[in-house]
Amino acid sequence: MIPSVPIRPATPGIEFPTLIAETEEEILALVRDRDPSTHGLYEMVRYHLGLDGSGAPTGKRMRPLLGLLAYASITGEYRAALPGAAAVELGHNFSLVHDDIEDGDRQRHHRPTLWSLYGVAQAINTGDAIFSLSRIALHRLSDLGFSDRKVLRLMRLYDTTCLALCEGQYIDIATSELDAETSVDLYFDMIGRKTASLIAASIEAGAILATDDDDVIARYRGFGWALGLAFQLNDDLLGIWGAAQATGKEPSDLAKHKKTLPVLYALEHGDAADVDRLRDLQRGPDLTAADVTEAVAILERSGARDYTRDQARRYRDEALAELDAAGVVEPDARVRLEEIIRTVISA
Amino acid sequence: MIPSVPIRPATPGIEFPTLIAETEEEILALVRDRDPSTHGLYEMVRYHLGLDGSGAPTGKRMRPLLGLLAYASITGEYRAALPGAAAVELGHNFSLVHDDIEDGDRQRHHRPTLWSLYGVAQAINTGDAIFSLSRIALHRLSDLGFSDRKVLRLMRLYDTTCLALCEGQYIDIATSELDAETSVDLYFDMIGRKTASLIAASIEAGAILATDDDDVIARYRGFGWALGLAFQLNDDLLGIWGAAQATGKEPSDLAKHKKTLPVLYALEHGDAADVDRLRDLQRGPDLTAADVTEAVAILERSGARDYTRDQARRYRDEALAELDAAGVVEPDARVRLEEIIRTVISA
Repeated sequence: MIPSVPIRPATPGIEFPTLIAETEEEILALVRDRDPSTHGLYEMVRYHLGLDGSGAPTGKRMRPLLGLLAYASITGEYRAALPGAAAVELGHNFSLVHDDIEDGDRQRHHRPTLWSLYGVAQAINTGDAIFSLSRIALHRLSDLGFSDRKVLRLMRLYDTTCLALCEGQYIDIATSELDAETSVDLYFDMIGRKTASLIAASIEAGAILATDDDDVIARYRGFGWALGLAFQLNDDLLGIWGAAQATGKEPSDLAKHKKTLPVLYALEHGDAADVDRLRDLQRGPDLTAADVTEAVAILERSGARDYTRDQARRYRDEALAELDAAGVVEPDARVRLEEIIRTVISA
Repeated sequence: MIPSVPIRPATPGIEFPTLIAETEEEILALVRDRDPSTHGLYEMVRYHLGLDGSGAPTGKRMRPLLGLLAYASITGEYRAALPGAAAVELGHNFSLVHDDIEDGDRQRHHRPTLWSLYGVAQAINTGDAIFSLSRIALHRLSDLGFSDRKVLRLMRLYDTTCLALCEGQYIDIATSELDAETSVDLYFDMIGRKTASLIAASIEAGAILATDDDDVIARYRGFGWALGLAFQLNDDLLGIWGAAQATGKEPSDLAKHKKTLPVLYALEHGDAADVDRLRDLQRGPDLTAADVTEAVAILERSGARDYTRDQARRYRDEALAELDAAGVVEPDARVRLEEIIRTVISA
């Protein structure tokens, strides 16, 4: 059922395209056809993952890359961690399939989303299948020689992480409703569960596979958690002040009534007239270009942009400090980890 | 995170109400509130499970009962298997939450379904949370002293079973469409994955926890698989010839255009005129009472009722033969297992 691949010796350089290609290969072995009667299911799985041979653009594979690099930064090798990399990428994608239905999004990576092509019923079920496959991915770690204790520890981490994802998504849906009360504090609670937890788990999993040193594992988790928060806050900045949003090429998060950190900060710290106006814009119909310009000015007056940027940088620095404190970093992997951190925190 | 309960000594008798009450207690410990910010999520979980303190009727808890009895039939004790019982019940319920959305069903156990109360978005996500909780349930087996090897074996069984559930649901959705081609063979393929696999896994899990004897484990799996098929075929019979259906108190499966085994058999074995008429009825608008009476007559003429009943009995007998062949059955648990078999195969 699960392919057995011998661990090959460490390659001299650790390049992203190689890591991504080997992760894809690991995932492909899991999502191939099993029986003629279920061909259509696996076809949908491969379509969503961009592994249907159409050369469709896929995600950035950030989570598996981080997991493989975390493992390599301790051991100098990455291949033994590929089942974990496949698991986190599949786990991330199960949540995307369901999020797209929950948010009513018809496009992802410039392609129709699964539900918009095959209907809500098949898409919910295909997401569930990807969730199941993400767990099946982990069992190959046993075949690669990891101890039962280690594999079980990884599974416990993965299971509690998946629950945290659902908790975060619950808060996100509940607070997205037009009149729902929310706050900066609740927003950090939400993104911790919804975004930081899986990024932290990807990196922690790499460390768990690489070492038995619980202090090192805790540092890697801390690194991943801070990086996850920085990643989300950077995304919040780009959603309003990104080049595509500022020029109107992509709709601003403001136009979509998204309550990201800058908006919540402005609602808590803006002056009374600005707060009233921002609330009106948030509750009203879809924002025009002029409305967006006005809302951006309100956010900037309240200090929301500076605050969000400061927070993103603070978490990025915290991430780097945790990585340094772990103190076991193999130089080549460290360079690659910093590349990701720079990509993640661009704003 | 996971409560630690000592294994208490075996009770003299094994009564269903006790087994159900202890399973509920095991599940309740998993679905209690964790944080104020996620209270609403766990409230939805408890509502669906009928554990919200409203005294709402819940399911029959057939799968945990079978798992506990399988374990007790080998060991004489059932409490150590409670985490497995909680896992299969939660796994079954995650699939019900999603099935209700996929089928557009607004009622279950005479209460509004989760999506009809809280919307599709929250219901999909709550189903995902229940899926995650079902896996977290299994980790308490480690706290109860089961070996890592055994817990991992159970997890592998559970993960492949969940994938089979999704495969079965894929076939079910695909073949439910009005003009979709299907067949008796494909129907057996579908119910094997969608129904028999989780019932077989519940019983196999009980045996895995109770013994290291792979022959015994295989017999218990065979028992569960045959019982699962018999259960589904019995359900098919009741959906058309059950007292409530025959008297019009509940809509017949025929009125709902459900392609269960009797319909598929009649389409393959009825005479040409009957097959044409049955196809017209299946493709047309909702069936009137007269249409249902006509369709039932067609099914009976084709031998579909006799065939389905023969198959249900054949699988019931196969289930009992597998149980006998396992040869390790503790008398009190055997009596209870036969009670379930009699309940399951009533038609």
